Amino acid sequence: MTDPTIELARDLIRRPSVTPDDQGCQALIGGRIAPLGFAIESLRFAEVDNLWAVHGDRGPLFVFAGHTDVVPTGEAARWTYPPFGAEIHGGRLYGRGAADMKGSVAAFVTATERFLARQPEPAFRLGYLITSDEEGPAQHGTKRMMQWLREKGISIDWCLVGEPSSRNRLGDEFKIGRRGSITGNLVIEGRQGHVAYPHLADNPVHRAAPFLAELVAIEWDEGNAHFPPSTLQIANIQAGTGANNVIPGEMSVQFNLRFNTETSVEAIQARVEELLKRHGLAYRIDWHLSGVPFLTRDDGPMVGAVERAVEGVLGTAPTPSTAGGTSDGRFIAPTGAQVIELGPLNATIHQIDEHVAVEDLKTLSTIYERLLDELDAEARRLAG
Amino acid sequence: MTDPTIELARDLIRRPSVTPDDQGCQALIGGRIAPLGFAIESLRFAEVDNLWAVHGDRGPLFVFAGHTDVVPTGEAARWTYPPFGAEIHGGRLYGRGAADMKGSVAAFVTATERFLARQPEPAFRLGYLITSDEEGPAQHGTKRMMQWLREKGISIDWCLVGEPSSRNRLGDEFKIGRRGSITGNLVIEGRQGHVAYPHLADNPVHRAAPFLAELVAIEWDEGNAHFPPSTLQIANIQAGTGANNVIPGEMSVQFNLRFNTETSVEAIQARVEELLKRHGLAYRIDWHLSGVPFLTRDDGPMVGAVERAVEGVLGTAPTPSTAGGTSDGRFIAPTGAQVIELGPLNATIHQIDEHVAVEDLKTLSTIYERLLDELDAEARRLAG
Ligand SMILES: [Zn+2]
Ligand SMILES: [Zn+2]
Repeated sequence: MTDPTIELARDLIRRPSVTPDDQGCQALIGGRIAPLGFAIESLRFAEVDNLWAVHGDRGPLFVFAGHTDVVPTGEAARWTYPPFGAEIHGGRLYGRGAADMKGSVAAFVTATERFLARQPEPAFRLGYLITSDEEGPAQHGTKRMMQWLREKGISIDWCLVGEPSSRNRLGDEFKIGRRGSITGNLVIEGRQGHVAYPHLADNPVHRAAPFLAELVAIEWDEGNAHFPPSTLQIANIQAGTGANNVIPGEMSVQFNLRFNTETSVEAIQARVEELLKRHGLAYRIDWHLSGVPFLTRDDGPMVGAVERAVEGVLGTAPTPSTAGGTSDGRFIAPTGAQVIELGPLNATIHQIDEHVAVEDLKTLSTIYERLLDELDAEARRLAG
Repeated sequence: MTDPTIELARDLIRRPSVTPDDQGCQALIGGRIAPLGFAIESLRFAEVDNLWAVHGDRGPLFVFAGHTDVVPTGEAARWTYPPFGAEIHGGRLYGRGAADMKGSVAAFVTATERFLARQPEPAFRLGYLITSDEEGPAQHGTKRMMQWLREKGISIDWCLVGEPSSRNRLGDEFKIGRRGSITGNLVIEGRQGHVAYPHLADNPVHRAAPFLAELVAIEWDEGNAHFPPSTLQIANIQAGTGANNVIPGEMSVQFNLRFNTETSVEAIQARVEELLKRHGLAYRIDWHLSGVPFLTRDDGPMVGAVERAVEGVLGTAPTPSTAGGTSDGRFIAPTGAQVIELGPLNATIHQIDEHVAVEDLKTLSTIYERLLDELDAEARRLAG
């Protein structure tokens, strides 16, 4: 119970840091790693707190990336234990953020402490990139920080994001990439009128129906060895005034694509617009790109280092995956960084009674420490 | 300016009888016709006032049908003249209800007065069926009154509805029927989920898209000599939570059909449900029937009597039409009554600055009077 990873995780969980309110979590982290020789920079963009910390001045730059913000608890009374209580019951630490991702952040810190105690002068630079807006709009968090780093001429070589990547048991899966995500906000234009006089109106729902049927039937690609096929889903559709005798003047359709490295933003947009034009539709469309897909191949050291670290601690190598939603890895990978995601089980994240097994969190800290050793060895090899 | 039709129309317009509030209009009408020998019955169903009046006790029953309620004025300040002021400017009587249909109701009364003064014992029974809920839900107005008449064993033979049927000049068109109207409230069922995991969800928009494309392309019929083809319009469609990463759990679609005498409610429902089943959709549907189509053929006396009355007064016979929305005729015609609609110009109804030409209203009263003469002659012929 006096394990340092668990104690730090509990301290973090007790701070109700619902996006974007950091509630002093980053100061707590900074206060722990500054004495180890880290240079700390706290950067606030809009209402978002961000922490940049770096240790050392030579060798490849490895970064622990994570977030201190959490999603709302929902109705707190429905939790078995208070969502910001950080109570331990039956070997599980309960609380909002226990798995996503204050537990990982605590493990970053304790792994760093033990590693630097043994190896005060590693052959690589060790950084922290922590934001308080990963769960929200994510405009003033990692995205802004990557811009700030670029302006300072800092580029990340290797990166571990602490997102909960494990599916059934700790370390069974890790992410080597993520699909991209793009949203299309489409308005099909028509002309409003009375249902009794359809010849004086132009029903956008009728016009668009064959287009929609074709849109949802598109096979975008077949995926590849690392990614499942790209998919499109219509998330929202709306037309009509509510009255049953009025032909709507326009219809709005919002769709989202999760796409892999077999296609591109440009190809997706061109295909949708070709379809709109072929169906002779009057339309407006705007696109919101959440992130392009990324893939960290095993021709760099990160994939192997993570695999060896996990196998070294658990006896089994983790399975690479690219499934699931987006993460802040989408902002880091495009700069050329090798980005991997490895963290605790994701079974309870964003849910009531979110929790993490106490033993898993201790083990995760050990895996992260082992990863630092692997990277140090790699950096020494590279330095020749 | 002291014309009785115009004065009565002004008295009615000055009462702000927005649906379903009659504001004493029916008492005013009853007070005018009771002295002519009409037996008056005032029936209030829920918040709706209705008037039944009948004169005579033998021969076919002819009814003037109309309503004292009006649609709201919208922003009164946008009217050139006060909407309940009944002011006359440039030969036009301005006010809400001037054309729809207090002008017609005033013309009913003055035509009746003149006719009965000349012919105190007509060969037909003359009735009034007036409601204060034609413009609203229409559940407690003419619909309920027809039920009440049926329970009393009264059936209407001939009926003139005073709805504004004229298009470009008074008496250029009259309605010999109306299309039916039926609304389908459809819910396509799916399974909600996250757009990143479409295999765990079932997008109802995707499932329904080919169905919708086929639904809107159906040719229901080709119409006939009296009716244009039946048409379907999707009035409302909605799916989605508003979030761009959630696959909707269901989609609601509301569509309305305006249908003619070539099809039937049963045929429409069967065709839609067959299509739903053929597309393998999980769905719920409920139907709301506003009215079945009706058509008054010229093998009865009403069509000819109206044509002769209009031609006798104006020199030109009116053109029969079945175009436009529904009217209370839908409740009267199914009992076997020959229903005709004839009234002033519909150009300004339900709009700001609704008005009727003073001369038109006087002429309309003359046409109605002439119609009573035609019907009296017809009744005498029938009585042999
Ligand atoms: Zn997270
Ligand atoms: Zn009306």
